[in-house]
Amino acid sequence: MQSLIDKIRSEASHIGDGILKVDGFINHQILPELTTEMGAVFAGKFRARGIGNASLVLTAEVSGIASALATAQVLGIPLVFARKRKPVTMSENCYQAETFSPTKNELVTLRVSSEFLSGRDRVIIIDDFLASAKTVLALAEIVRLSGACLLGVGCVIEKVFAGGREKLSALQVPVVTLAKIDLVDGNIRAFR
Amino acid sequence: MQSLIDKIRSEASHIGDGILKVDGFINHQILPELTTEMGAVFAGKFRARGIGNASLVLTAEVSGIASALATAQVLGIPLVFARKRKPVTMSENCYQAETFSPTKNELVTLRVSSEFLSGRDRVIIIDDFLASAKTVLALAEIVRLSGACLLGVGCVIEKVFAGGREKLSALQVPVVTLAKIDLVDGNIRAFR
Repeated sequence: MQSLIDKIRSEASHIGDGILKVDGFINHQILPELTTEMGAVFAGKFRARGIGNASLVLTAEVSGIASALATAQVLGIPLVFARKRKPVTMSENCYQAETFSPTKNELVTLRVSSEFLSGRDRVIIIDDFLASAKTVLALAEIVRLSGACLLGVGCVIEKVFAGGREKLSALQVPVVTLAKIDLVDGNIRAFR
Repeated sequence: MQSLIDKIRSEASHIGDGILKVDGFINHQILPELTTEMGAVFAGKFRARGIGNASLVLTAEVSGIASALATAQVLGIPLVFARKRKPVTMSENCYQAETFSPTKNELVTLRVSSEFLSGRDRVIIIDDFLASAKTVLALAEIVRLSGACLLGVGCVIEKVFAGGREKLSALQVPVVTLAKIDLVDGNIRAFR
């Protein structure tokens, strides 16, 4: 997605340890036009891989929500965001799996209520980054626990140096990303 | 917004202490069509009150993001979501204010980076609930600290029994909500 690659080239910075600062368009400020395009491109890439009948988009709060909602808008299906902390409104019956947050440096338990994910669902997972793949694998575990069928995974930015794509190969579903980045002498290189 | 009122009537439940369970369309699962309509109705209501030149939509993570993004999509302006926990990517230069989370029963510090909010901005605040108004007042304090101009406030569901609208009167800006609810013998009554 060229507009995203351009944005990464002009605005993203590497703050060390492979962590990218993309506050201007993913983690803090959201640009509607860019985000709407992300949804359309994800939907198109899934369609091109024969995935046309998903029933649900699944993401993890917080930074996955915008691009996941844009995808759900194009596909016309609900979005569920896994909660990182259990609000009092959440059902006791939930599927859960652990991940790790590199930007907050802590273990996080993701939870999805069984009210909104069932064995009848056909699920697409969307997240902001594909790095170590821990969050996507936790979401995939939640899908597995629910008995739903995982159809595909989409991540906005793929850190190719982090090896996440290899870790997702066991899922045996298409993995699509909108921009890839590598680090060359500590500098970000963004490409298709 | 009739479709939202219908949804509240058919799905929302009162779990006690004035807290609503609206996981099916606001706090956990998001319905794109309903959410897109929320954005269009917010934009129309602001326009009807003479607010047509906002530069930024401001909300608080997590549950405000979807309806705020839908509003930003219609208005064609960026969305900034205040962070509740400071990620390592966040600038040290940020505006902050305290609020209270009733669903997590704790004080929360909201932070917005000065990179994405300045004295030149004309801001609309969007949030999911108007109850005690603490979160909206914290966001309004962040707008004040930045020197930006607050143009209006929009909340998806107004709990009229919680008195938040009166607490916002000092802001002297239009406050629009998409559905009002009251409790009658502990049962939810939803209306315009």
